[in-house]
Amino acid sequence: MLTVEQRKGLIEAALGRRPLDLVIRDVRAVNVHTGVIESGDVGILFGRVVTTTAEGLQARATFDGRGQYALPGFIDTHVHLDSTLLTPENLARLIVPRGTTAMLADPMESANVGGLAGVQALLGGAADLPYHLLVEVSSRVPTAPGLETTGGTLDLAAVQDMLGWPAAVSLGELDPSKVLGLQDEYLAKVAAAQALGKIANGHAAGLAGRELEAYACGGLADDHEGVDYADALARLRLGLSVLVREGSTERNLDSILRGVLAGGLDTRHLMFCTDDKHPDDIVAEGHIDYMVNRAISLGVPAIQAIQMATLNAAEHFRIEHLIGSLAPGRWADVILAPSLERIVPAEVFCQGRLAARDGRIVAPTPAATYPEWFSHTVKITRGRQAADFNLPAAGPAAEVRVIELYPDQIINRSGRGRLEVVDGNLRADPSQDILKLAAVERYGQNGNIGLAFVRGFGLQRGALASSVAHDHHNVVIVGVDEADMAACVVAIEEMQGGLAVADGGQVLARLPLPLGGLMSPQPPEQVIADLRQLSAVAHDLGCVLPAPFMTLSFISLPTVPELGLTDKGLVDVRRHVLIDTLLP
Amino acid sequence: MLTVEQRKGLIEAALGRRPLDLVIRDVRAVNVHTGVIESGDVGILFGRVVTTTAEGLQARATFDGRGQYALPGFIDTHVHLDSTLLTPENLARLIVPRGTTAMLADPMESANVGGLAGVQALLGGAADLPYHLLVEVSSRVPTAPGLETTGGTLDLAAVQDMLGWPAAVSLGELDPSKVLGLQDEYLAKVAAAQALGKIANGHAAGLAGRELEAYACGGLADDHEGVDYADALARLRLGLSVLVREGSTERNLDSILRGVLAGGLDTRHLMFCTDDKHPDDIVAEGHIDYMVNRAISLGVPAIQAIQMATLNAAEHFRIEHLIGSLAPGRWADVILAPSLERIVPAEVFCQGRLAARDGRIVAPTPAATYPEWFSHTVKITRGRQAADFNLPAAGPAAEVRVIELYPDQIINRSGRGRLEVVDGNLRADPSQDILKLAAVERYGQNGNIGLAFVRGFGLQRGALASSVAHDHHNVVIVGVDEADMAACVVAIEEMQGGLAVADGGQVLARLPLPLGGLMSPQPPEQVIADLRQLSAVAHDLGCVLPAPFMTLSFISLPTVPELGLTDKGLVDVRRHVLIDTLLP
Repeated sequence: MLTVEQRKGLIEAALGRRPLDLVIRDVRAVNVHTGVIESGDVGILFGRVVTTTAEGLQARATFDGRGQYALPGFIDTHVHLDSTLLTPENLARLIVPRGTTAMLADPMESANVGGLAGVQALLGGAADLPYHLLVEVSSRVPTAPGLETTGGTLDLAAVQDMLGWPAAVSLGELDPSKVLGLQDEYLAKVAAAQALGKIANGHAAGLAGRELEAYACGGLADDHEGVDYADALARLRLGLSVLVREGSTERNLDSILRGVLAGGLDTRHLMFCTDDKHPDDIVAEGHIDYMVNRAISLGVPAIQAIQMATLNAAEHFRIEHLIGSLAPGRWADVILAPSLERIVPAEVFCQGRLAARDGRIVAPTPAATYPEWFSHTVKITRGRQAADFNLPAAGPAAEVRVIELYPDQIINRSGRGRLEVVDGNLRADPSQDILKLAAVERYGQNGNIGLAFVRGFGLQRGALASSVAHDHHNVVIVGVDEADMAACVVAIEEMQGGLAVADGGQVLARLPLPLGGLMSPQPPEQVIADLRQLSAVAHDLGCVLPAPFMTLSFISLPTVPELGLTDKGLVDVRRHVLIDTLLP
Repeated sequence: MLTVEQRKGLIEAALGRRPLDLVIRDVRAVNVHTGVIESGDVGILFGRVVTTTAEGLQARATFDGRGQYALPGFIDTHVHLDSTLLTPENLARLIVPRGTTAMLADPMESANVGGLAGVQALLGGAADLPYHLLVEVSSRVPTAPGLETTGGTLDLAAVQDMLGWPAAVSLGELDPSKVLGLQDEYLAKVAAAQALGKIANGHAAGLAGRELEAYACGGLADDHEGVDYADALARLRLGLSVLVREGSTERNLDSILRGVLAGGLDTRHLMFCTDDKHPDDIVAEGHIDYMVNRAISLGVPAIQAIQMATLNAAEHFRIEHLIGSLAPGRWADVILAPSLERIVPAEVFCQGRLAARDGRIVAPTPAATYPEWFSHTVKITRGRQAADFNLPAAGPAAEVRVIELYPDQIINRSGRGRLEVVDGNLRADPSQDILKLAAVERYGQNGNIGLAFVRGFGLQRGALASSVAHDHHNVVIVGVDEADMAACVVAIEEMQGGLAVADGGQVLARLPLPLGGLMSPQPPEQVIADLRQLSAVAHDLGCVLPAPFMTLSFISLPTVPELGLTDKGLVDVRRHVLIDTLLP
C-alpha cells in the first residue's frame, strides 16, 4: 500500500510541483472505467499512475509509446502457480511478456506438501517479481480430511493469520462438500475473510439447482468451475461472479461467452482465470491475452474483453484501488499494443518499470532461495515393486468401477467395466482402454496405495506417473503394466518429485520437480522441452490425451465429481466417502 | 454478519431440510445480477434471502406477492441523517415506505456538536430500526481546523476506532483542501480505511483538471459533488464512482443522466444519494424511489435504474454480500411494486419483516433514548443584542464581498457590492438583495460572531436563523435587520437549537431541534408542519428561495466553493483562509 509520504508525492506530481519518474508518451489509453479510448501520455511516480494526460508535466524519463494502445495489465483471477511446474520467478518469463501482471494464486499445492511452511517456501522469494503475486488463502488443506494423506495442513488459526497478510485478497476456493456438509471450520473461515473485508472464492463444481443455492448461502462470492453458459447463468443469478476458465485441460471460455453474447448478458461480473495451465500451453497459445483475444474473436467488444481481464477482476477482489485500471494511484501496470483487434503486447510495464518487450522478459528475475527441506519432500514407503499395484480379485473376471474421462474437462463420470483376473490380480485392459490407476502415499507416513481404473487415456503399454496430483500431491500413476508403474515411482523418488514415463521396465522420459515435488528450478524452455518429450513418449505408447500429465494430476482430486483417487482409495466425491473399486 | 450457525440454517433451508421463516409467494423477482425478471417466490430465513425459487420448500408463514415485482431495497449512498431534522427512528416513517432500506450515513453533524460522544448519541438508539443504518466515518471534524469553532473533534485515533465498527462502511467524504493541502492526518485516515478493506468517500466540489487528478491520487473512491454530466464523466474516467445527488437544494440527476444516456455510458459506477434532503421534500416527491423513477422517466432502462439504487451501491461499498440484491445470504430487504414503469412500493420488507405497506410504516419505530447532555448543546455567549451584528465601516458607503447564491446548488460565487454605512455600521440593502449574514458561536467557547453579506435570498425584512449550519453547526442568521437577527438567536437558545423567523423584533415561527441542536424528537408530520410554517413566513417576508433554511444551512460551509461563513469570519474556500468582508 502507498505510504502517506508517497501519496503526497503523487498529489504533488499531479499538480506539477515535482517531476514524474516516467512518462509513456503518445498512447491511446484504454479507459476501462468509461470505455473511452483517450489520446494521452501516462505519467508515473513511485510505480503508480499519476495521470493519463501527462502532457506539460516534467518527467525524469520518457518512453515513446508510438501511438499504441495503453491497457491495464491483465489479471489471472485464479491460478495454482505451482501447477505450472515453474517457480514464480521463472513463470514471469512466460506470462509477463503476454501482459499478465497480476496472479491471484491459491498456494494449496505447496500447503498440502508442507502446510504454512510450504506456502512460505513458495512465496518467500517472490518479493522482486515483475508481476503482483497475490494470495487466495487456501481454505481446505487437506481437501478431503480422512480421505487422503497430505504433508501439511492449514487449520482455522493458520488461515485467519494468512488472511491478514497484505498480499491476501481472499479465502481460496472452498469446495461444496464443506459447505453442504455444514462443517463449522470452513464456514468460520468464510466468516473470517468477510470480517476482514475480503471475499471467499467458490468452487461449485457440478452444482446446480437447490445444491447451488445452498452453496451460495454459504457466503461464497464466485465460481470458476462452470463449464458452459447454463452453468454461468445459474451462478450469476445467485450473485456468484463467474471466473471464466481456460486452462490446459478445462476449456470453458467458448461455451460461456457464446452464450453471453447470444443472451446479451452484461459482462461486469465475468473475469478470466487459467486455474491450471502447463507452461508449454502458455508458450503455444498464451495466457490471459489468449482469453482476451479469443473473446474478441467470438464477438465480445474489445473494451469489454479488456474489462474482464482487468477492472472486473480488480473490483470483484476489492483491489480496484491498487490494480485493474490506469486511474490515478493504481500500480502502473501498462500493456502497450498496436491493435485492439488482436492484442499482442509490444511492451509490458509492471509497477512503472519496463518488464517485457516484443514477447521477451527484460526485467531481472533472480532465482529465489528455497529452504533446504523443500527439496526433500518425497518419502516413498511402498510402490517400488510391481506387486504393490496388484488388485486382488477372485474368479476369471470381475466388474469394476471405472473413472470415465470427459474430453477437455476435469469432471469425470463414474462408469463400469469387466476385467480379466490374472493370477488373482485384476489387470488393465488396453483393448477396452481401461487402465490401472494408483495413488502412492509419498510423505513417509503410512505407505498407503489407492487403486482404481480409468478410461480415456488410450495408453497401449507402459505407465505414466506424477508427483503433482491434486490436491494431496501423492504420486499418481496410470499404467498398463504394474512393473512400469513401479519403475515410475522409483524414478520420482530419485528425482524427489517429478513426472516420468516407463515402458518395458525402463524409464523413457522424466522431468524432475524437486521443489516440493511440484516445481522445477529450471528455466521454462528446459521444462517445456522435458514436458514435450514426456508427452511424445506417452503418445508413442498410445496415449490419446493432448495433455496426459495435466489430466493425470486431476484424477486424484477428491473434490471434482464424480470420482477421485487418493492414497486411501477411490472417493465418491458427491457423497464424500471411500468406495470399493470392485463391484459386488 | 451471519454467525456460522445461521449460515448452516440457511444452507439447510435451501436444501429443504428445515422450514423457511417466510415465503413471499408469486412475485416477479428483479435479478439485478443478470438483469432478468424471474417468476418465483422469495424464501427467507433469519431475515436473509435463501432463494427466489422457493416453490416446494416448507415455510412457517407466507405472504401473497400478488404477481408484483420484487426488488431489492434501495440504498442511499450518502446522507447526513441529522440534516433531515428527524431522529433516525422518526425518519424511518418517511423513507421506508418509499423503499429505502439502507442509509449510508456520515454522522458529521453530531460529531461536530459532540465528537465521538455525539456520534454515539445519534446512533445509540438505532439497533431496532426498520432500515440498515451504516456509517461513513466522518473524516474531518472539524471540517476547517482553525477556521471555525466546533463542539467536538474526531482525530486519527478516533476515526481508526470507528472504522473498525461492524456498521462502518467507509471513511466519510474528505474535502479537497485536506488532500491537495497534503495534510498527513487525513491521508493517514484514508490509509486506515484501505487497510481495513474499506473505501474512502470523496467530496470533490468544484474540482477539475489537474486538481481533480491530484485529488484522485489521494486514494478517494468516489464523489457526490459533481453537478452535471461533464463533472460526472471527468470523475468516472479517473476511477471515481459517481454518487448522483438529488437533495433539497442540490439537483444533479437530470443533467448527469441525460448526458449518460446521450453518451451511451455504462451505468455500473453510478449510484444515488440524497446527501441533505428536508423531510417535507421527502414527503412531497420521495426519496431514492424518486431518483429511480426520475431516471426511468428520462429513458434509463428500469433494470439499470434499479441497479443504481441497489447493486451498484452495494458493490462500490463492498457490502454486496449483505445487501443490494435478492441473492442467497443477503438481507431480505424486498420492495413489492406492481409496475416497473413507475415504481410505487406497495409493500416493503426489511430484514424479512414487513416494514411498510401502501406508503405507511407498519414496523414499530420505538423512540430511542438520547443522553441528557445531547439536549443541552446551545450555549450562546454573544448574539442576543442587535449591536452584536454591527459591521463597522467608515464613510458614507463601502465595497464589500458578497456570497452570490446559485439556484439549486450549494456552490456559490464570490461577488461584490456597495452598501451604505449607517451610524458607522454597514447595513443590509434589500433593494439590491444584499443581506447581512452572521455565524454565532454556540458552544460556549469564545463568543465569536462572523459577519458577511449574501445575495439570493430576496428577503425584504426580518431575519431567518438556524442552528443547523454545516459543518460546525453554530447559529447562522440571515437578515435585513440586526434586531431581528438577535431575536432569532435568543429564540434558538431558548429552544436549545432549532430554526426561527423574526420580524419587527418578534419571532413569527419556530421549529425546536433540541437533540444536538440538529434534530427534533417530534414525528415527521409535526416537523414538516413547522417547517412549512417557517417557509411560508420567510416567503411572506420576501424570501424567494424554495428551501431557505436548507440554503441557509449550507452558506456556513467552509469547504464548498467559493465562500463560506463561520463564527471566525468569511472563508475563501479554495485558499482555505479567512478574508475580510470589507474590500479595501
